[in-house]
Amino acid sequence: MDSNTFSMHSHCVQMEIHQVVPPPHKSTLQKFKVRLKETFFPDDPLRQFKGQTLQKRLILGAKYFFPILQWGSIYSFKLFKSDLVSGLTIASLAIPQGISYAKLANLPPIVGLYSSFVPPLIYAVLGSSRDLAVGPVSIASLVLGSMLRQEVSPSAEPVLFLQLALTSTFFAGLFQASLGILRLGFIIDFLSKAILIGFMAGAAIIVSLQQLKSLLGITHFTQQMSLVPVMSSVFQNIHEWSWQTIVMGICFLVLLLIARHVSMRKPKLFWVSAGAPLMCVIISTLLCFAIKAQNHGISLIGKLHEGINPSSWNMLKFHGSHLGLVVKTGIITGILSLTEGIAVGRTFAALGNYKVDGNKEMMAIGCMNVVGSFTSCYVTTGAFSRSAVNNNAGAKTAASNIVMSVTVMVTLLFLMPLFQYTPNVVLGAIIVTAVIGLIDIPAACHIWKIDKFDFLVMLTAFFGVVFISVQLGLAVAVGLSTFRILLQITRPKTVMMGNIPGTDIYRNLHQYKEATRIPGFLILSIEAPINFANITYLNDRTLRWIEEEEEDNIKDSSLRFLVLEMSAVSAIDTSGISLFKELKATMEKRGVELVLVNPLAEVIEKLKKADESNTFIRADNLFLTVGEAVASLSSTMKSQSTTTEEAHTIVPHY
Amino acid sequence: MDSNTFSMHSHCVQMEIHQVVPPPHKSTLQKFKVRLKETFFPDDPLRQFKGQTLQKRLILGAKYFFPILQWGSIYSFKLFKSDLVSGLTIASLAIPQGISYAKLANLPPIVGLYSSFVPPLIYAVLGSSRDLAVGPVSIASLVLGSMLRQEVSPSAEPVLFLQLALTSTFFAGLFQASLGILRLGFIIDFLSKAILIGFMAGAAIIVSLQQLKSLLGITHFTQQMSLVPVMSSVFQNIHEWSWQTIVMGICFLVLLLIARHVSMRKPKLFWVSAGAPLMCVIISTLLCFAIKAQNHGISLIGKLHEGINPSSWNMLKFHGSHLGLVVKTGIITGILSLTEGIAVGRTFAALGNYKVDGNKEMMAIGCMNVVGSFTSCYVTTGAFSRSAVNNNAGAKTAASNIVMSVTVMVTLLFLMPLFQYTPNVVLGAIIVTAVIGLIDIPAACHIWKIDKFDFLVMLTAFFGVVFISVQLGLAVAVGLSTFRILLQITRPKTVMMGNIPGTDIYRNLHQYKEATRIPGFLILSIEAPINFANITYLNDRTLRWIEEEEEDNIKDSSLRFLVLEMSAVSAIDTSGISLFKELKATMEKRGVELVLVNPLAEVIEKLKKADESNTFIRADNLFLTVGEAVASLSSTMKSQSTTTEEAHTIVPHY
Repeated sequence: MDSNTFSMHSHCVQMEIHQVVPPPHKSTLQKFKVRLKETFFPDDPLRQFKGQTLQKRLILGAKYFFPILQWGSIYSFKLFKSDLVSGLTIASLAIPQGISYAKLANLPPIVGLYSSFVPPLIYAVLGSSRDLAVGPVSIASLVLGSMLRQEVSPSAEPVLFLQLALTSTFFAGLFQASLGILRLGFIIDFLSKAILIGFMAGAAIIVSLQQLKSLLGITHFTQQMSLVPVMSSVFQNIHEWSWQTIVMGICFLVLLLIARHVSMRKPKLFWVSAGAPLMCVIISTLLCFAIKAQNHGISLIGKLHEGINPSSWNMLKFHGSHLGLVVKTGIITGILSLTEGIAVGRTFAALGNYKVDGNKEMMAIGCMNVVGSFTSCYVTTGAFSRSAVNNNAGAKTAASNIVMSVTVMVTLLFLMPLFQYTPNVVLGAIIVTAVIGLIDIPAACHIWKIDKFDFLVMLTAFFGVVFISVQLGLAVAVGLSTFRILLQITRPKTVMMGNIPGTDIYRNLHQYKEATRIPGFLILSIEAPINFANITYLNDRTLRWIEEEEEDNIKDSSLRFLVLEMSAVSAIDTSGISLFKELKATMEKRGVELVLVNPLAEVIEKLKKADESNTFIRADNLFLTVGEAVASLSSTMKSQSTTTEEAHTIVPHY
Repeated sequence: MDSNTFSMHSHCVQMEIHQVVPPPHKSTLQKFKVRLKETFFPDDPLRQFKGQTLQKRLILGAKYFFPILQWGSIYSFKLFKSDLVSGLTIASLAIPQGISYAKLANLPPIVGLYSSFVPPLIYAVLGSSRDLAVGPVSIASLVLGSMLRQEVSPSAEPVLFLQLALTSTFFAGLFQASLGILRLGFIIDFLSKAILIGFMAGAAIIVSLQQLKSLLGITHFTQQMSLVPVMSSVFQNIHEWSWQTIVMGICFLVLLLIARHVSMRKPKLFWVSAGAPLMCVIISTLLCFAIKAQNHGISLIGKLHEGINPSSWNMLKFHGSHLGLVVKTGIITGILSLTEGIAVGRTFAALGNYKVDGNKEMMAIGCMNVVGSFTSCYVTTGAFSRSAVNNNAGAKTAASNIVMSVTVMVTLLFLMPLFQYTPNVVLGAIIVTAVIGLIDIPAACHIWKIDKFDFLVMLTAFFGVVFISVQLGLAVAVGLSTFRILLQITRPKTVMMGNIPGTDIYRNLHQYKEATRIPGFLILSIEAPINFANITYLNDRTLRWIEEEEEDNIKDSSLRFLVLEMSAVSAIDTSGISLFKELKATMEKRGVELVLVNPLAEVIEKLKKADESNTFIRADNLFLTVGEAVASLSSTMKSQSTTTEEAHTIVPHY
């Protein structure tokens, strides 16, 4: 084969071309800057400002911080028509859901409407998603209510409870905005898809169980959230069950589920499920008014004040014994609502082929909650179900949020007395129908098929939320998935490589059955950064490979070279450097030479720094590819020894 | 170039040889087994049992669990002579250090001698290191004393304090043995070299500061450990300083430091520093007896009981209000003493070219502490300084521990009254001399040179220990280094690759200046597992590469292929799979084709499972090397388009 001659030839003559070179010198400061940029500004948001005039930069900057300026300047009547339709549609969903979710958070129903008025306006100015429909959501409401209830009873001290809820909202917003400003958005990435699927299914069950209170008409209900106490509370209070409430609940639940089913089958009929909750509220209210339901044991919402959001900055409590709880609640609901908002924003951005900037969205959602906490709103974010309806209804810009907001304002100003006779049971039915969509069985099956560990994480989140608590379930699941990453580092893959016949390619011997071993060589590929967490393992594992090798090789020629393919070692620390020193010493005692192949920039640099006597990194044990290393070392071996005549024929062909 | 023809030729004809193949099928259970083995049994301890008869297996098993059977059967008089000398040498060090460290832990001095009698015997039977000299050590003593002192005063309630110390020792041993049995030894790897250097230097300072009490003769000393309260306590009690104590302290300190210096200069004179502490104790005791030192304000040890260790299993307290503290203290001192013992064992094993099995050592040290807690001993482990002396004095087997133990026993039985007049100040001087060796400035400089982040971790551990507390300093340093690993995963390196002219090798464009880009191709190498923590970043970063590419390419031919080199992607999860789906969709919208190069076994398998319609993994977008991908796709490009005639000349040569 003529290619063989060529390669061997080029190897002897052009050796310097193929040499491993250290990276161009950079000062510590330069390296630090690059790393800082990659860590916090991977999307390089300042790129568009480069090479622009000052005026242009100011305009770009204003558009960057207020996306409304971007789409506002090209807004047309045609776009408005689309936004009007979608805005009215989501308003018809937002009003009953707002009232329902506020009750889920143990807050007065009207707070849910307040929260559907101010935050959407803020988001319309600051947010970059076209589809996000902003307002209270089930999970954040659930967590807020259940966490605060640990210390304060919403029925005994309603004012204090509201104060704590608003303060938590303030901290949630502050935390969200800080994550965005400090560009720490990657923190929410730790709530992986698998965790979210398990968590949302668990939360759906927890939320649905809470609705048994209103669906069954129970008055003395447990304050706890998890499955066991709720079920025991339901069956202990069996005497409180009200058949009128149950009948009404079942009727509306069936109605809503049918509407949901219709819209899922035919996406064009999205308005069926979008309008159904409002229809149910209207029908049930009329019914209750007609039959004087309060006399039949059906509990009603009762009087609601007219008027838009009162200011509430004087209700924020930054001192007192509950501060710790309030901060904790703020951070947890902040993370959860942020995760939901960003995930929803990204999903629809991908569908519509536009981009949302995670860090900017965090600032928008954070500002919205901080302002919300000053105007009697509790934690809000982009809701999945309403955003889907918004998108289906043809929303083109964030103006649909403005339309919704105005509609809610009109309701607050003029229509509040109408809700007086709305029964709580219909709100329960609305919540159950909304959260059922959070249970995603096909996604769970998909995860099971692809990755068993992810499935385990999902189950942990699910059972943790259902049986213990939302916070603990999430924490354990996040811990488990982080542990997996650490385990991958602690036990990195090391793979024995062989030559694929007829090529100079070396690949995993277990994967490529045709790959063959090269006698005298042990070629290992290390597939992780080398650091303190894995040097003991790598040392032990390499020694085991070598011992096994020497046992096998007793009849054959003995092991001469340990070739470490380092292409995948992306980083190394001082412990990693000491591993190489140790390995080299051990190998020398066994008469085996340590050869490194393609160490990356950082690794070469550090090895050089640690290797003052320059005995470690030399041209004859540092190669650019495994093929070259084997070819070069085989020829040295041949020229050194007189008895390896037959070894030559086993050298792979080039 | 003929090689070019060959390679292009082989590529068209032998395409199927170079295909990426999925790994041979394995069931989930098989994969789980392999992973379990790699995680918990990387050293494959059962290998030696394979293919042996039952009897042989039993013998091997007994030798595995009791290494004394291994060396005991070949023990000779010649070995014993060496062990006798080294055993007596370390005994002369162990007796004064044992008394001193017990005082450091706020325990009666005699407990230090008890702890130098039983544990070395146990270790001689179970331990696999030849050089480890077992007994109380400074760091574990310091931490044990300072943690327990948070809740119980050793002067006000000495019996309770001793009970808690013994119970902590029991839990430390239990924890250590469990780590070994459950093969979770990798947990101690998280105390990296950098952390240990910073921590030990900090601990040396804290320990030395505590000795100011005895060196200055202060009677009212603070109960706290960190720098600020200790220094203020020293200067507030300036009226308590005793000049006689100070003079004596300085004399012995200078003497000990000179002895240490001599031995460091000439390792053959190791016995000078090894014998110096005992000499100082003898001289100072005689001196104090002669001058009736107690009348001159010099505090003495006082009466010590004769007799060997009393049993103490009835002193263990497994209930009561201090249980939490005791368990915590046990775990922390357990980890610390384990780390020291294993590190010392490994260091001398590497020097002597034999192996110590980490998990087995953990069991040995754990058993030693559990038995110790039943026999009035507190936490013990292999001490660095004494092991070094042991090694220098020529110890050949663990029998030197037995010799030391017997010497301590003789002391306990007959020589205790002699210590009555030993001044506390000499013990302080002995401790200071011992811990000064823990400050390793050259190692700190080495770390600074190689890795700035490791240096930061080291400083964190140092200042955390000096200014806050041992536990918190360590926890923050471990957290910081774990955070770095997570950051490496969250922000993995993605590198743009180019062709090295005259070869089919592709390498980092920034490292290899001669490497050239291939027009129409964007070749990225991803250098980390792909998972939930980094998909957002990878998505953003890839899009940014492509956008930059398209801006550059406006004049040139436009981008056609995104080639992802996946050799370094060692693992993937469900989120990672969804990244590829998303990337493929985004690329299709831009008219760019996504090509994968050399995905590893696990990645191919999961991609295949997720790709039911089989549109994703196809022969024409899956290649074994970047070179083949570029060659094959360039020829397709050429045959498809008529205007890319000139592109042909830029294709790299093979």
